[in-house]
Amino acid sequence: MHIGLIGLGKMGFNMRARLRQGGIEVTGYDRNPEVTDVESVEALVAALPSPRAVWVMVPSGQITDSVIDQLGGLLDAGDLVIDGGNSRFTEDQKHAAQLAEKSIRFVDCGVSGGVWGLENGYGLMAGGSKEDIESLLPVFDALRPEGERSDSFVHVGEVGAGHYAKMVHNGIEYGLMQSYAEGYELLAAKDIITDLPGTFRAWQKGTVVRSWLLDLMVKALEEDPGLASIDDYVEDSGEGRWTVEEAIANAVPAPAITAALFARFASREDSSPANKMVSALRNQFGGHAMKPAK
Amino acid sequence: MHIGLIGLGKMGFNMRARLRQGGIEVTGYDRNPEVTDVESVEALVAALPSPRAVWVMVPSGQITDSVIDQLGGLLDAGDLVIDGGNSRFTEDQKHAAQLAEKSIRFVDCGVSGGVWGLENGYGLMAGGSKEDIESLLPVFDALRPEGERSDSFVHVGEVGAGHYAKMVHNGIEYGLMQSYAEGYELLAAKDIITDLPGTFRAWQKGTVVRSWLLDLMVKALEEDPGLASIDDYVEDSGEGRWTVEEAIANAVPAPAITAALFARFASREDSSPANKMVSALRNQFGGHAMKPAK
Amino acid sequence: MHIGLIGLGKMGFNMRARLRQGGIEVTGYDRNPEVTDVESVEALVAALPSPRAVWVMVPSGQITDSVIDQLGGLLDAGDLVIDGGNSRFTEDQKHAAQLAEKSIRFVDCGVSGGVWGLENGYGLMAGGSKEDIESLLPVFDALRPEGERSDSFVHVGEVGAGHYAKMVHNGIEYGLMQSYAEGYELLAAKDIITDLPGTFRAWQKGTVVRSWLLDLMVKALEEDPGLASIDDYVEDSGEGRWTVEEAIANAVPAPAITAALFARFASREDSSPANKMVSALRNQFGGHAMKPAK
Amino acid sequence: MHIGLIGLGKMGFNMRARLRQGGIEVTGYDRNPEVTDVESVEALVAALPSPRAVWVMVPSGQITDSVIDQLGGLLDAGDLVIDGGNSRFTEDQKHAAQLAEKSIRFVDCGVSGGVWGLENGYGLMAGGSKEDIESLLPVFDALRPEGERSDSFVHVGEVGAGHYAKMVHNGIEYGLMQSYAEGYELLAAKDIITDLPGTFRAWQKGTVVRSWLLDLMVKALEEDPGLASIDDYVEDSGEGRWTVEEAIANAVPAPAITAALFARFASREDSSPANKMVSALRNQFGGHAMKPAK
Repeated sequence: MHIGLIGLGKMGFNMRARLRQGGIEVTGYDRNPEVTDVESVEALVAALPSPRAVWVMVPSGQITDSVIDQLGGLLDAGDLVIDGGNSRFTEDQKHAAQLAEKSIRFVDCGVSGGVWGLENGYGLMAGGSKEDIESLLPVFDALRPEGERSDSFVHVGEVGAGHYAKMVHNGIEYGLMQSYAEGYELLAAKDIITDLPGTFRAWQKGTVVRSWLLDLMVKALEEDPGLASIDDYVEDSGEGRWTVEEAIANAVPAPAITAALFARFASREDSSPANKMVSALRNQFGGHAMKPAK
Repeated sequence: MHIGLIGLGKMGFNMRARLRQGGIEVTGYDRNPEVTDVESVEALVAALPSPRAVWVMVPSGQITDSVIDQLGGLLDAGDLVIDGGNSRFTEDQKHAAQLAEKSIRFVDCGVSGGVWGLENGYGLMAGGSKEDIESLLPVFDALRPEGERSDSFVHVGEVGAGHYAKMVHNGIEYGLMQSYAEGYELLAAKDIITDLPGTFRAWQKGTVVRSWLLDLMVKALEEDPGLASIDDYVEDSGEGRWTVEEAIANAVPAPAITAALFARFASREDSSPANKMVSALRNQFGGHAMKPAK
Repeated sequence: MHIGLIGLGKMGFNMRARLRQGGIEVTGYDRNPEVTDVESVEALVAALPSPRAVWVMVPSGQITDSVIDQLGGLLDAGDLVIDGGNSRFTEDQKHAAQLAEKSIRFVDCGVSGGVWGLENGYGLMAGGSKEDIESLLPVFDALRPEGERSDSFVHVGEVGAGHYAKMVHNGIEYGLMQSYAEGYELLAAKDIITDLPGTFRAWQKGTVVRSWLLDLMVKALEEDPGLASIDDYVEDSGEGRWTVEEAIANAVPAPAITAALFARFASREDSSPANKMVSALRNQFGGHAMKPAK
Repeated sequence: MHIGLIGLGKMGFNMRARLRQGGIEVTGYDRNPEVTDVESVEALVAALPSPRAVWVMVPSGQITDSVIDQLGGLLDAGDLVIDGGNSRFTEDQKHAAQLAEKSIRFVDCGVSGGVWGLENGYGLMAGGSKEDIESLLPVFDALRPEGERSDSFVHVGEVGAGHYAKMVHNGIEYGLMQSYAEGYELLAAKDIITDLPGTFRAWQKGTVVRSWLLDLMVKALEEDPGLASIDDYVEDSGEGRWTVEEAIANAVPAPAITAALFARFASREDSSPANKMVSALRNQFGGHAMKPAK
């Protein structure tokens, strides 16, 4: 099988390598001339056998929109576009409808595994028609870890379902990370704990909390046992926000995932207006001292 | 009526004044020679008519313990001690039992109103026997605002119930302050809001959120419209922690009050170990950049 | 002054009465023939002096949309529409732009006070141009409580700012209600509290937590001291959700308000899928018994 | 090596088996005559070589207290007691001091792995002196999974540190379970998801959220795909509460873990007094309908 792959960044670059290792022929395009196989999206489209399959692996939002726009103008009826990025699931139906006007097919696929996917394989969650998904099984099989297909690949449902599942996956990830991080801080706060990195290390086998994220924390603590070199500023890239928005839209209580999101927001404030107001109020009613602004 | 009052700080000093305005004779003692009426607790005890009533208004914990110890040694059977400070309710039964060995009576009384109590009167929540509480009604009536007694005074229950109610009152206060403060920050974050202090001001009459705390926020914003002069560091003085501990002990979900408590904890961290760990994890799995420590 | 008022439900009906008491001439329209003054919106428009002012007080969303559509077709250049309902602030710019095509002016106004507004007056938060707002001051003055205008009315900012402020006001309201409710449950859980309604009653004067919502809780507890007659199911009507969505959009931590929203969601679940999963997991790893489904 | 093991319930029974498989001689005692090796604790003590090592694996609290009391009366100077149950870490120093009066040594050891430990091995977190811990290495090595000792065993610190680490481990476990469960509910709420169990199954390999708990969820969903057979009532057994209490004691924000704990509390309420109060308040200010009690 021979597919096109647009976007060769941290994810796409490794995916191309894994696909090729798995026997899939890949023509990749990226704006970065050092990594691209062809000079343009047009050249990529020209290089592919018909019916073409083009996997889009670019940042969600405007960039994905413009790549899909461009593909809509270049591909033929019967061709297939896969959005493997982190698009919001609500975008998928829009993209599918837009491409369907030209009888171009569309599949959305959440891809998990991060920079380790090249080595370990990726977990895949796909949305689309049965027929379209089945036509891509060789691609999915090359990307995912060896072993049972159902352990790392799922056809979640119709178009959008793959990205919805990936969004929830990332929301869960927020909650998992926050939970471990709270535990880390609780251990760090207690002076009777004399081997904190060793405690995380010892949780890797046998315990109920063992996980891949835990293995990565052990790695992080090996590299910097007190995390002294890094700031406590934490970015977010959208999926956590969307997960909470879906919780609201569906009236689902999601307090742990939301706590994780708000902790990130708070981490980025130089000074919290809300906390200032609480301090001002304590002063007003109780005469409690306020700390002057730095 | 003539009572003793030990502790003439921010609260006790004003309470002495209000009691005297209300026709109660007060002998006050404080370690601070500039405010005390007598030179010692012994002198205070000697000055009071029998059966004596001594109102203790000192910081909770060790200082309250030692004052009650001392009173236990100086008072006579039939005398009455009132703990009006912010003692944990679990301390009350201990203090009551200790004094009961010498047939000294005990009442706990939560006092709310802060530095404004002198002017506005105090809200009072008392725990103890019906007889003991009734013997103190003239004192309670002088301290509380004018009007119906039941609007500002309650005999909550047995010994400890007054401080339990005051603890819950303060826990609620945490949640109220946090709620307003979150709203304040949401207004501050939005550039279409061109009159933020005016918005709080306009909530004072007619709206569902009108309250005394809101009036104080209006005052705070009049003094410093952007709260620019103060830091976002917020102290806590125990009752919020106890409230959450009681929520845990009684299996009562208390997410809003707990959120308020945790926001204060977070406000006091120069750098959050938990957030650092989340940042380190994002780097491990996704290659996301970490901000270097300052 | 003479204005039109569309929507004479729980809010609009009382507002018409208060406006008339305040000397404003009002022509009201409602689909309900028992309360309407005129037979149609057309008749309402025909009854008003030029330039007309029409206050819309109908449910947000489709109904507001269709009323504004209709007014756009009936009003003339220079007329003014006020949306006093609980529209999302993002709707206001859409409505303003739609009406501006015909040179019809638009003001949004958040109205707080509930069913008590007739008696107490309403708190008002308006968004729009200075000129438009000023032309409505007689109306605002009739609706709001007596006293200083700035205590109950604010020109928050441009179009949309009034509803944004009202949305935040309602978000705060969620947090306040949740905080009091958690305190209520903490008191109810403790057997040493022998006068729970009396405790809330005594918080009304003097305490830091005194507020109008507290006064209403006292009323509710007078009517049903143990709240035995009502279910624990709690509806929500949108503003709480929007507030949390704005928190997310602006990266503002809002844990107390969000806790209040999630508590309502949870109150409406007959059975929580999330809790079932936790129970199933405890069984899987620890052999802990699961309760069978009812 | 030959040790005593008191308590042969869900955990102890399996641990005896695993220890024996690992070449450790074990004399076990349980009140249940069907599983015990000896008739009494006295007989167990008599059967052990000197210096004796007795591993206590009974419910925390009073039962652990009484077993340790009893051992204090039966053991000799130089003998060693290991508390492998889920005692609160604050109990350990009390137990250690009590036994030290008779020169009996004490080690606390958190044991994780649940009913799967027999097969997979247990994760172990030990607190005590270096010498005491080292004397028990053959026991720890038999209990833990094969492979590197540091992947499943840690000497966390002095007496109490093992149980502190286990408490934090369990607190993290609460947060992890809650996070997955929220994600499960978000998937269940969305009709475009047509293969929910398959989605969890596909997360097992390759994804960032892969973990042992996830594997157990897959198992639970295989046994009951919609979790229809079980109720949403979730018990808690103490460690989650203690974790939040430690968060409070150490001023560490722990919102995700606390959310998990409160979700369990809420799951056990037939009717929430807090939610009733919110419903009553909405009725008071807005005339919103209340649902009558069932």
